[in-house]
Amino acid sequence: MALPLNDVALAPPETPAVRSRSDARQEQLIEIAIRLFARKGYEGTSLRDIADEARITKAALYYHFPNKEALYERIVLESMQALVDTVGRAMAAGLSPAEKVRIFMLASADFLDRSRDSWIASSNAFWSGSDIDPRSAAVHLRDEYEHLLRDCITDAIKQGQFRPIDAAMAGRMLLSMLNHLPRWHSPGGRLSTRQVIDQYIDMAFNGLRAVGATAPAVPAKTKK
Amino acid sequence: MALPLNDVALAPPETPAVRSRSDARQEQLIEIAIRLFARKGYEGTSLRDIADEARITKAALYYHFPNKEALYERIVLESMQALVDTVGRAMAAGLSPAEKVRIFMLASADFLDRSRDSWIASSNAFWSGSDIDPRSAAVHLRDEYEHLLRDCITDAIKQGQFRPIDAAMAGRMLLSMLNHLPRWHSPGGRLSTRQVIDQYIDMAFNGLRAVGATAPAVPAKTKK
Repeated sequence: MALPLNDVALAPPETPAVRSRSDARQEQLIEIAIRLFARKGYEGTSLRDIADEARITKAALYYHFPNKEALYERIVLESMQALVDTVGRAMAAGLSPAEKVRIFMLASADFLDRSRDSWIASSNAFWSGSDIDPRSAAVHLRDEYEHLLRDCITDAIKQGQFRPIDAAMAGRMLLSMLNHLPRWHSPGGRLSTRQVIDQYIDMAFNGLRAVGATAPAVPAKTKK
Repeated sequence: MALPLNDVALAPPETPAVRSRSDARQEQLIEIAIRLFARKGYEGTSLRDIADEARITKAALYYHFPNKEALYERIVLESMQALVDTVGRAMAAGLSPAEKVRIFMLASADFLDRSRDSWIASSNAFWSGSDIDPRSAAVHLRDEYEHLLRDCITDAIKQGQFRPIDAAMAGRMLLSMLNHLPRWHSPGGRLSTRQVIDQYIDMAFNGLRAVGATAPAVPAKTKK
């Protein structure tokens, strides 16, 4: 909105209010988009769906976001940045690499609890099977998140807390548990997300095998 | 195609050919649908997309499948049934419950390798975050698949091969690794699916922790 020059002196008190109304509307649109992307997927959600739910015209939606890609990208970037920041800060309290791995899992689970829809919406961006091509900024943040975990696993191996396993593979195993969680766990279920993660950490750190039990042999016919 | 009555005697040799052409066309449509559902999701795939790719009219597609739900349901049921049958048969070769758990993982990974798209398309049917409401027959098969694993974990605990962990939670931990695999692993990658699963099984059975390493303390501030 261009202001006539002679009104410029009066503009400052008004501008923040105008911007804040626009920001609030944009936040509302983003919230609706996150919910729809999480429930119906990126492909299954149209700008019309979002405009309909916000009770505005598609033209009014275009004023805020030029296209669906831009809206989705903003959601993925904001969500990934918040995840990296939150988890990274929490890990600083860890006194050993293995403890930091544990905090990574718990802080991620807390983030998932608080921001379930944006977690689901943005995790779909990285699915290799999908048509979505996440921008390099999103991939960079995802890598940064995964490296928070992998670097601690590497340190835990160096310091003798973990066995000499493949750190990248151990990281993927732990990330699988987190990423699969919203597929089966309901926030109002018998166990809290934290209780589930506590059990997962115990099983992953200490193994399923009973002390003294021997490794199961692989029958010849199942070998490649 | 109704045959005139005086041609009925000639009909039998023709009917199988007619039926087989129709079956072959239906198989082709199902293959296309599986590929599209896996790449674009259920919500993101329309009957028009499938008809377009098969180069037939939407009306011709309706001849085979009354609606998208029926087509998707058939895909999910056939894929889940094949998975339960294949994995169940492979497990019969296991000489102990822990060995059967290992075979469950490897046979599932082989199935995923062979039927990647139908695995992805049908696993989406059970995502609690989605709008899709899988029919009870599909849920029943999913439960049957998960129980193949959980029952062996329970037996392995009873026989002292596994620690007294929560069998349902241990099953979910192992299923997370399988279900998350198509999200990061490419079939042509450095490691085969089997090699990844072998590493996962070693880490899950034996734990990440080095022998003699103490459990990491949880800092007070990350506790609930």
